[in-house]
Amino acid sequence: MFVIITYDVSEKRVNKVCKKLKEYLNWTQNSVFEGEMTKTQFLKCRRDLEKIIDHETDSIYYYVVENPKHLKKFHVGAEKADLDLFF
Amino acid sequence: MFVIITYDVSEKRVNKVCKKLKEYLNWTQNSVFEGEMTKTQFLKCRRDLEKIIDHETDSIYYYVVENPKHLKKFHVGAEKADLDLFF
Repeated sequence: MFVIITYDVSEKRVNKVCKKLKEYLNWTQNSVFEGEMTKTQFLKCRRDLEKIIDHETDSIYYYVVENPKHLKKFHVGAEKADLDLFF
Repeated sequence: MFVIITYDVSEKRVNKVCKKLKEYLNWTQNSVFEGEMTKTQFLKCRRDLEKIIDHETDSIYYYVVENPKHLKKFHVGAEKADLDLFF
């Protein structure tokens, strides 16, 4: 399945969240990761992330499309930077 | 169709981009808007946004799911703030 994850997480925890997401998905831009993953990976990723964040102040949205063919993606503008520059 | 739009836009243009997106979609968090729109609205929205941004430095991703039933959305953590606080 194809998954898009966006997060709004305190600076204190943002590196941990990014590193965890990078294990499963590709960085797109800002606070957005995306990519294909299995249901098992998705559940593990959610469990891991939800141990890191503060549920009172941080926020994560998950968008899941079971069949990647049902999702169209368009991009306009500058090419994304290389995440490795940041980690 | 259901559309998710994420942007990475210079501070100089970010307010214009947000105001334009607010005409069509709901703000989710950070630089993410989402919602249902017609194909005509989507094309108009893209045209409008692409007039505002600097194509050399700014970046916008559009994710489109024709049938909203094909998209599952999950949220964990803090509830989103009210966008009206910012505009």
